[in-house]
Amino acid sequence: MTIPNFEDVLNANYLIKPVIHQTPVLTSISLNEMTGAKLFFKCENFQKVGAFKFRGASNAVMSLSDKEAKAGVATHSSGNHAQALALAARMRGIPATIVMPSNSPLVKSNAVAGYGARIVFCEPTLEARETSLNKVVEETGVTFVHPYNNFKVISGQGTVALELIEAVENLDYIITPVGGGGLLSGTLISTKAMSPRTKVIAAEPEGADDAFRSIEAGKIQASVNPKTICDGLLTSLGDLTFEIISKNIYKIITVRDENIIKAMKLIWERMKIIVEPSSAITLALLLENKIDLKGARIGLILSGGNVDLNKHIW
Amino acid sequence: MTIPNFEDVLNANYLIKPVIHQTPVLTSISLNEMTGAKLFFKCENFQKVGAFKFRGASNAVMSLSDKEAKAGVATHSSGNHAQALALAARMRGIPATIVMPSNSPLVKSNAVAGYGARIVFCEPTLEARETSLNKVVEETGVTFVHPYNNFKVISGQGTVALELIEAVENLDYIITPVGGGGLLSGTLISTKAMSPRTKVIAAEPEGADDAFRSIEAGKIQASVNPKTICDGLLTSLGDLTFEIISKNIYKIITVRDENIIKAMKLIWERMKIIVEPSSAITLALLLENKIDLKGARIGLILSGGNVDLNKHIW
Repeated sequence: MTIPNFEDVLNANYLIKPVIHQTPVLTSISLNEMTGAKLFFKCENFQKVGAFKFRGASNAVMSLSDKEAKAGVATHSSGNHAQALALAARMRGIPATIVMPSNSPLVKSNAVAGYGARIVFCEPTLEARETSLNKVVEETGVTFVHPYNNFKVISGQGTVALELIEAVENLDYIITPVGGGGLLSGTLISTKAMSPRTKVIAAEPEGADDAFRSIEAGKIQASVNPKTICDGLLTSLGDLTFEIISKNIYKIITVRDENIIKAMKLIWERMKIIVEPSSAITLALLLENKIDLKGARIGLILSGGNVDLNKHIW
Repeated sequence: MTIPNFEDVLNANYLIKPVIHQTPVLTSISLNEMTGAKLFFKCENFQKVGAFKFRGASNAVMSLSDKEAKAGVATHSSGNHAQALALAARMRGIPATIVMPSNSPLVKSNAVAGYGARIVFCEPTLEARETSLNKVVEETGVTFVHPYNNFKVISGQGTVALELIEAVENLDYIITPVGGGGLLSGTLISTKAMSPRTKVIAAEPEGADDAFRSIEAGKIQASVNPKTICDGLLTSLGDLTFEIISKNIYKIITVRDENIIKAMKLIWERMKIIVEPSSAITLALLLENKIDLKGARIGLILSGGNVDLNKHIW
């Protein structure tokens, strides 16, 4: 198992800079007043496909040799990674196959199809996903790009914190969501190298607290029947992300959905930007009051903004 | 009747620059593709109090002599101007009185009260508003700051287009909403001086088309029982704004609510920012297809982002 280091993040940064958006860092006087801290929001909701996932996916696609690229890429995902990989593949002009559960919302499969990817539907179980994916890989010789437990993906996600730390000096903390741990792992690698005194805290939904339990137990715990509004944070850690997180994390703090919804509404209302629940959990962590961060300078990674606006939200 | 000119906008700009946000200009590849034009969105939804109204209100408040300031300011408004004037007054440390119709949403009166203004409720008619306001002015000697038909307010609103034209070269068109005409008047003044070849188009709700009818008729037509989702665009022109608009406007184009809602959803979904219907009307104008703007470089003024998120939106 080879663990990416900061040089890999720098390589990713060099490679993907021309194709990604360098997203802005926003501040809000009223949210500063409300929390008693200085908050710096890194807005990956403005990233291509509406989420940080495009960084890792495009790093994976652009790192392929010409020969590998020709065969194409594949993944299983019903979320932002699916769209991210589809777009990254289209930009390189190579085929992408996305395995999606048959109960995926139409809006998601349409978006993936809109980027020109081939969709293979499967039963909505992890097992079926993996079987279908393996079949695709065996039949066509494509490269599998795992949504998070992948060297190149983690290296790409590390560019979020890289840009944040370049933009804002002297951060005491960086708060990032944790699902499968790709973003968190990349954040840990960049932060350790660029600003070692900055502590990284991960926010995890109380109803999907497998990362919290994994770090407690010292080995990966499965995410069984997760229940949370954060549809981007349902998965469990992989061996790569577990290794990086367990060695470097300051704290994982669990957050209740009730506060996530409250935080999401605050961000929409006060900052006039749209974030998804999996992003709002970073601000929600401050509402939980499990740790005193008064007076601190805090970077919060808003991971994405893909919300189904047709659903009743509050 | 003294009409403000570009020098008055420059004075306003000098005066209010330290207290306002210089708002960003955003672009969207997918909205460019969809409309076949190059769109530059001036984001006043990120302005203080969530709307451009803070520019005019703070110019009016900061232009007062010390003696005038001491007596305070007043206005009648249930919308963004009320909050804008309340905040501007608080920032100068002077009293503000806001006359609001008794049926104003609680969220609006709470926001105004939150800025420390005194609220006087009146019957929900234009007549009652004006009577109550006159009473306040006579009793207390405060300065009345009209929401749009006011020299200083128009001069302040002109700084939106000033910043937009400084930020983006070679605009073929600027599209702005029109309600009472303060923003439109300021936009016309700045555009004429800074970029005379740029044509200014105003977007007006079909169900509140008094400005369109006023320009057709050559004199102010009242806004009778306006019916539109754009709660910021219900009022009719004043003598000052009518004079500026009728002399300088390229076109007023009416837009159906159906397209306004569609455009609002597009902006939320694609740009991940929150705008109110009165802002979305600028993009909606392009969906109406009443004028061919293909290939043009177009500045769109997103006037504000104050939406009641508790209401069912779509």
